[in-house]
Amino acid sequence: MADLVRVDVEEARALCVAAYRRHGVPPDDAARAAEQFILCDLLGIPTHGLRRLSNYIGRIEIGGINPTPDIQVASRLPAVAVMNGDGGLGTVVASRGLEEGIRRAGENGIAYISCINSNHFGGNASYGWLAAEAGMVCLSGSNGTPTIAAPGGKTPAIGNNPIGYAAPGPDGRHFILDMALSIASRGKLRAARDRGEPIPEGVALDKDGLPTTDAGAALDGFVLPIGGHKGYGLATAIDILSAVLGGGGIGTGIRHQFKQPGEPSNVSHFFLLIDPAATVGRDAFRQNILDFAAWVHAQPSVDPARPGRLPGEAASARLARNRTEGIPMTQDEYDRLRGLADGSLSGVIPTS
Amino acid sequence: MADLVRVDVEEARALCVAAYRRHGVPPDDAARAAEQFILCDLLGIPTHGLRRLSNYIGRIEIGGINPTPDIQVASRLPAVAVMNGDGGLGTVVASRGLEEGIRRAGENGIAYISCINSNHFGGNASYGWLAAEAGMVCLSGSNGTPTIAAPGGKTPAIGNNPIGYAAPGPDGRHFILDMALSIASRGKLRAARDRGEPIPEGVALDKDGLPTTDAGAALDGFVLPIGGHKGYGLATAIDILSAVLGGGGIGTGIRHQFKQPGEPSNVSHFFLLIDPAATVGRDAFRQNILDFAAWVHAQPSVDPARPGRLPGEAASARLARNRTEGIPMTQDEYDRLRGLADGSLSGVIPTS
Repeated sequence: MADLVRVDVEEARALCVAAYRRHGVPPDDAARAAEQFILCDLLGIPTHGLRRLSNYIGRIEIGGINPTPDIQVASRLPAVAVMNGDGGLGTVVASRGLEEGIRRAGENGIAYISCINSNHFGGNASYGWLAAEAGMVCLSGSNGTPTIAAPGGKTPAIGNNPIGYAAPGPDGRHFILDMALSIASRGKLRAARDRGEPIPEGVALDKDGLPTTDAGAALDGFVLPIGGHKGYGLATAIDILSAVLGGGGIGTGIRHQFKQPGEPSNVSHFFLLIDPAATVGRDAFRQNILDFAAWVHAQPSVDPARPGRLPGEAASARLARNRTEGIPMTQDEYDRLRGLADGSLSGVIPTS
Repeated sequence: MADLVRVDVEEARALCVAAYRRHGVPPDDAARAAEQFILCDLLGIPTHGLRRLSNYIGRIEIGGINPTPDIQVASRLPAVAVMNGDGGLGTVVASRGLEEGIRRAGENGIAYISCINSNHFGGNASYGWLAAEAGMVCLSGSNGTPTIAAPGGKTPAIGNNPIGYAAPGPDGRHFILDMALSIASRGKLRAARDRGEPIPEGVALDKDGLPTTDAGAALDGFVLPIGGHKGYGLATAIDILSAVLGGGGIGTGIRHQFKQPGEPSNVSHFFLLIDPAATVGRDAFRQNILDFAAWVHAQPSVDPARPGRLPGEAASARLARNRTEGIPMTQDEYDRLRGLADGSLSGVIPTS
């Protein structure tokens, strides 16, 4: 792996904002979109951080992402809303949706927001983090281009829909989970193919829907969801919560961000927010979550140096460190970020 | 397998109600508790159906379950409530919680209910079915005695917390998912042990937290969650949504229904309900869900006789058949049901 440099958070943020501004994104939206990348990088999820900027910019350049969307909110009751993202940056649409949801949950104790007509929104983690910062328990998810077959199927029916949850933790060390529903990512399959190694059984099917341990055949086929029908079932739940409830795209109504980059992806996200102030009160909730974490931490581990944790505790520690030391990235990534900001580089859309 | 008899639904319901009434459960609560068992049996989930009646009755007899709970609802805002089940039948507490949630979601578009101080509530499926019948999208879950270790842990930290979702389907063929977060149930491990067969790798750990394929060693140890840290993370989310948000029991605060049957189990459940009338309207939602189902059904299968389905479609078909033909059970199960109803049999609590 290439040597990593550490880039000051505010410098990285300013470069990202400048790149978006250069491509017509208004100031407030550019700040929102940058915030999501920065948070993912701080939390140690660089796959959904600044590394994606070049791709997003590339899609703005060819008209796949609308830099100046007319985002509309439709709401029939105070705790429920559907946001139409008008094909804007997913990170802008979702950031606005989350903000709307946090406000409504603060007033009603709970809120549900479906964000339709959006694009790739990064990861659940950054939104979960912001919800937890606002004192909320959050469930979230996004649908995506179908990549997972129904059990027994031989074409993709459902996206590898990521699901997330977050809860405010002690002293800003929040609990967050951000997971795709496949056992292994396509990135891991590509790495195995490039090394000429087989993949484990039960991870993927070939293009005919039959089990394979050949990484190349798996890449022509489908990844398998965790727990078979269980993960598949959860993926369908995310589609219903993201898209079906809000009137968003499903199936062929969703375009692949890399294979059809010049068209709006038409993906949908959702946020479900609950304010502990409306259940037991924030002080009691804080104590309850401390007790819960203490219980998990008190369980002995096989390796005493690696104690049991709640999801997000490692990410919280990385965030604290990266805030102080800067965001780790390769020199190439740093150069690309500066090039996108000063206009000397155009966006690049990956081919897969 | 013993020959199955088919018992008329209303006869089975009346016998179950009579058994509960004989043990001091008031009429309305007896009807609620019977309804959950009957629905699970109709949906083809007999493990959470009438087969459990003897165990529930046994726990009432020894004081573990309160037949006449003083169930209280605390609510600070209209769309959020915490129900204290006072150690009542889990099927009564959850049934009342769901009803409360459906009413509140009908008025507010969304509702969240935490039911604390409850007992085993059966399965998510019956509640999901009722929510879908009421036109609601539902997420639900329950915590339970810790049986799953944190990644790297060697004692149980978290329950094999079941998670469910439901959405109203076309013509009453609802979409429901009801899944535990382990790869395999302890029942399957026991069956493998009794046959003297090994279990697959990656399904369980021994009592020291180390991988094992020995079913006996696994039974002394822990089942593993689907997707490793993913399933574990989801289980922690269910604990937070069920118990931590409502002030219910966690860790050693939860008693095992079979190992400590004479004490209230102190488990917690939750229901999150969204009314499509508050998002796109019920008519548009019905069309969206039809389109979604049609898309999944249109995908070709490896075996054309086994088309891809949404979760719950098989259960819906079973429910339609069992309603007409009667609930399938063994003669022994039928005799036990009648004996519990006429008082000639006492409840029996399983040892594991």
